Amino acid sequence: MRVVALAAHEAGGPLRPLVREVGPPGPDEVDVRVTHCGICHTDVGVIDDEWGVGRFPVVAGHEAVGVVVAVGANARLEVGARVGVGAIAGSCGHCARCLGGRQNLCAARDDVVLRGDGGAFADHLRASDWRHVHPLPDALPSAEAAPLLCAGTTVFGPLLANGVRPTDRVAVVGVGGLGHLALQFLARWGCAVTAVSTTRAKEAEARAFGATDFRTPEELVEGSFDFVLSTVPADLPWDDYLAALRPGGTLCVVGVPASAIAVSPMSLLPHAKRLVGGVPASPEENRLMLDFAARHGIRAAVEVFPVGEVERALELVRGGGARYRAVLEF
Amino acid sequence: MRVVALAAHEAGGPLRPLVREVGPPGPDEVDVRVTHCGICHTDVGVIDDEWGVGRFPVVAGHEAVGVVVAVGANARLEVGARVGVGAIAGSCGHCARCLGGRQNLCAARDDVVLRGDGGAFADHLRASDWRHVHPLPDALPSAEAAPLLCAGTTVFGPLLANGVRPTDRVAVVGVGGLGHLALQFLARWGCAVTAVSTTRAKEAEARAFGATDFRTPEELVEGSFDFVLSTVPADLPWDDYLAALRPGGTLCVVGVPASAIAVSPMSLLPHAKRLVGGVPASPEENRLMLDFAARHGIRAAVEVFPVGEVERALELVRGGGARYRAVLEF
Repeated sequence: MRVVALAAHEAGGPLRPLVREVGPPGPDEVDVRVTHCGICHTDVGVIDDEWGVGRFPVVAGHEAVGVVVAVGANARLEVGARVGVGAIAGSCGHCARCLGGRQNLCAARDDVVLRGDGGAFADHLRASDWRHVHPLPDALPSAEAAPLLCAGTTVFGPLLANGVRPTDRVAVVGVGGLGHLALQFLARWGCAVTAVSTTRAKEAEARAFGATDFRTPEELVEGSFDFVLSTVPADLPWDDYLAALRPGGTLCVVGVPASAIAVSPMSLLPHAKRLVGGVPASPEENRLMLDFAARHGIRAAVEVFPVGEVERALELVRGGGARYRAVLEF
Repeated sequence: MRVVALAAHEAGGPLRPLVREVGPPGPDEVDVRVTHCGICHTDVGVIDDEWGVGRFPVVAGHEAVGVVVAVGANARLEVGARVGVGAIAGSCGHCARCLGGRQNLCAARDDVVLRGDGGAFADHLRASDWRHVHPLPDALPSAEAAPLLCAGTTVFGPLLANGVRPTDRVAVVGVGGLGHLALQFLARWGCAVTAVSTTRAKEAEARAFGATDFRTPEELVEGSFDFVLSTVPADLPWDDYLAALRPGGTLCVVGVPASAIAVSPMSLLPHAKRLVGGVPASPEENRLMLDFAARHGIRAAVEVFPVGEVERALELVRGGGARYRAVLEF
């Protein structure tokens, strides 16, 4: 397969075509003709080399939607199927996690953002394992489904992993690319959902996404929530958010803060509270997520850019201006 | 009821008798003639006023074993029953936590260490709610059972709360008052149990308590454990312990460190790890714990002091010299 990707050739540099020939797919591999790809802040980080990896050329993109064009001998997918591929495109298949259906925790997983030149800002994407290529329900439009593959799974996975119940009172911190999806999922999950944002102007949209309450951080009340999902890449006053939990409650962090997360032992111990990290859902859970989104009309709010306008789209994401997610159309 | 307690009248001062008359028990209350009371580091903290409460006289003690001498009209306990009362001696009875059987998380719970002059270093102890007074199985000797009421429940509660499975690989950090009980519980729970201590000399005893492996902190291997239970009141290299967890694993802190617990976001997020606080078990869970201990011959290793030697016992605990728990006999 011939892959024409949009590669950064230096940190923060403009994306220019990079052509690779990757041969036919291996037994478990799947080749996808990409029609849409969401842009996540992580993609900007890869292009701008925020983590100092210094490896170029590099191809970002890990929220792909497209059509299967070739499958390996073992792959349980049809050519022509409309599918999504997210941040994880493969796993070893034989470790305890893979055997147990938690392929998302495989130590040897194929993290698309760490691939170098194999990302999804390209006309074609190869997934190394068909289990991580998810058929899309017909009800999900491609552009609006793309961000579900990373942003969606990142906020949906923790609901299953932490046993969030429809009877719970939940807070979503941040009304952005992740947060606007979390609000939708949790509202349809049956929870009482409080959107937390420093930006009062987001209240109306937060309520439209399903929030039943809106608070600024200063307005939080101690002992209010069973589950708090932090979606913002910020250093929050963690002890305050732990205090906002009920006894036995869970603070789940999916936005990556810049600094260490420091909490007082007394915030955790006397009332058995929990600080947990989120991770994208497993393949099984991703399919549940897509089904749930299809059944409930959950959609990413997207601004679609033709691929020729990729630089404008990247600038929007760099500046935090996406409402709520930018998507490239190939 | 006339209560003769051993009270500190100034920070770190010698314990001297304090007599109170408390009247007959209320409807849910239970009066216990104390025969034994374990000494926890928290008791030394109360006597020495480590947290600067400055309220004297104060009576420590919250690991009581004794005999019921009077019960209120509602109390489902027999006079004459041998019972234990731990750090929680009551709860409101009507909040969501109490209704749900998690009376240990009640915001209005009766924390014995916060009572002031109502602690269990006394000839009698009044529990404010019979639900927190636990009948002792005959198989448990009183002196050896006393530490189960706080140290035992503190390490046992998290096994239930976090769904520790008999197939798990577990590390217990610290081989002391809490740790020596955790090793026994976990070995009988069916787990592979690694004792972690800086003191190599504790290896033989750790193995006798049920550890199947012994490591110094420097010998820990990344990705080894499903569950790590930290029982030491120390500021540990938290990121190292999170690294020692397998993906999806849990670090549970029951020893109270002096400083904030700071962890890198990257220690939690990419592999969905968890940092959780422990809390004493619920009344139902305490009864499961006592039954489990009785069935499996689990005992605190104790040094028993007649009540007249309370100062010597306190000195032993102050100096961290108890092997593994000091118990007063009244």
